[in-house]
Amino acid sequence: MPSATPEKLSTNASFGGEISKFAAPAHSLGGLKTQFNVFLPKEALDGNKVPVLYYLAGLTCNEDTAPWKGGFLRDAAAEGIALVFPDTSPRGAGIEGEDKDWDFGTGAGFYLNATRDAWSKHYNMYDFITSELPALLTALSLPLDLSRSSIFGHSMGGHGALTLYLKALLSPSSSSSSSAKYLSCSAFAPIANPTKCPWGEKAFGGYLAGGADEGKEYDATELIAQLKGKDKDVKILVDVGTGDQFYQQKQLLPENLIAARDAAGLSPSAVSVTLHERYDHSYYFISTFAPAHIKFHAQALKAAK
Amino acid sequence: MPSATPEKLSTNASFGGEISKFAAPAHSLGGLKTQFNVFLPKEALDGNKVPVLYYLAGLTCNEDTAPWKGGFLRDAAAEGIALVFPDTSPRGAGIEGEDKDWDFGTGAGFYLNATRDAWSKHYNMYDFITSELPALLTALSLPLDLSRSSIFGHSMGGHGALTLYLKALLSPSSSSSSSAKYLSCSAFAPIANPTKCPWGEKAFGGYLAGGADEGKEYDATELIAQLKGKDKDVKILVDVGTGDQFYQQKQLLPENLIAARDAAGLSPSAVSVTLHERYDHSYYFISTFAPAHIKFHAQALKAAK
Repeated sequence: MPSATPEKLSTNASFGGEISKFAAPAHSLGGLKTQFNVFLPKEALDGNKVPVLYYLAGLTCNEDTAPWKGGFLRDAAAEGIALVFPDTSPRGAGIEGEDKDWDFGTGAGFYLNATRDAWSKHYNMYDFITSELPALLTALSLPLDLSRSSIFGHSMGGHGALTLYLKALLSPSSSSSSSAKYLSCSAFAPIANPTKCPWGEKAFGGYLAGGADEGKEYDATELIAQLKGKDKDVKILVDVGTGDQFYQQKQLLPENLIAARDAAGLSPSAVSVTLHERYDHSYYFISTFAPAHIKFHAQALKAAK
Repeated sequence: MPSATPEKLSTNASFGGEISKFAAPAHSLGGLKTQFNVFLPKEALDGNKVPVLYYLAGLTCNEDTAPWKGGFLRDAAAEGIALVFPDTSPRGAGIEGEDKDWDFGTGAGFYLNATRDAWSKHYNMYDFITSELPALLTALSLPLDLSRSSIFGHSMGGHGALTLYLKALLSPSSSSSSSAKYLSCSAFAPIANPTKCPWGEKAFGGYLAGGADEGKEYDATELIAQLKGKDKDVKILVDVGTGDQFYQQKQLLPENLIAARDAAGLSPSAVSVTLHERYDHSYYFISTFAPAHIKFHAQALKAAK
């Protein structure tokens, strides 16, 4: 089913480019209307096709959180990269319990395709981000080179960025899938091993008929173990603060990602995971490392031209 | 009456430094508790006294708006400058009509000292910012060099920054007033001539017994006319977007500030006012010009050492 052209809700000039908010009904979200922001650098306003960096936000956030608080636009403008900020879940599906908890349901889509009956019609953020959102961007005829896409995110969105990147990397390259491929992936304080932490256990138990076992296909630590011998194809950057309460509560488990990386024989330069003293889970942490993440993706996106 | 030491509510590491939120009862606000954020760059954490840049936020905003959305911390960290973000008004005074409108009362203190009976006990943000806040910072024993202070702000806070700066500049230098002096002043989309626009007329009519006539002492365009011959003492930077709906609605009136500057024989290098095409009133505009504003203040603050 072809996507309708999204409706433009607003545009704000910023850093020589502009950020626009769009709304569109999404097939993968059961027809619910969803919103997303797109930042176009000046190069794009001048008519040049630019590469695309998707940002996936964390629990309780929406499409505005990162453009407002992340500090990403400045460096994306300097590098000539477009940024795309989708929402974190469907909204208004009307499912019982959807708005009960801050870490499940609304604002907590976990970037998967739900298989439990109650959720499977609407909670398909995996399909939305990898297939429908690129189609919506194409329908808008924006000056984007979607063949050069990368992805990053925070917390639940860091989990999303890692798993979408790894699943695309692991899927057969011969397939003519319409799903997005990503040239690089980075994450701030990601939920790196969700089948082994309370947030992930709750999400997978709720959304997936097969629970945590089915959840392994959406678990970065499980997926990275399958990358043995692919060191040169992998570009992952992860930063975590040791002052992060959720790191301390073992919701993030970057140590498990590191162990899986090492067991798969992948190098720290292919999968860089750095712990930073004092930093916490907030956007004060994210904005600090935003310039380095944009630079990391710019190198991958520009090398591909 | 000496100020009590403020209570620290939180601290977040950011850009090598840290931002902390404090709360304290304020005499100038009728004893109401108020909150403010202080960003200390790494130099301060290392024990060095650093200069201070105050930021006054606009209508409906609070002490968190600019640290979250302004993009100021990155450049302040690079320049070794502390940032202080107070709230925009008292909160919870319980005055009739205080929460009725978004442009008057709560979130809309207009950085003046109220003289109308109902408001004069609590609505004294002028005294709070210029006298009590520096005393609270001193009580905290933070590594700040308050003799090197500058000020900036947005919209109503741009009005506040301009008027606090100009009133200090115009007050007799022989006075041993405890009020802050500022080495430089900048504003994003300030309400530059409040006695001549609807927002200012409403605020001055509500807070001041003498209405708009009394309001002239809180009007940047009125104050700048008194600076004839003081060109070399003045350091003001103003940026406004022509796509700003409030500029278009004649709430900001930068053209009146320019005319008063020119009539007073002040140079555009002493009072720089620039209109930028496409930009609006939002933090997408502010963050774009944030680096230039921090650089402007850093030059003044460092030259004073």
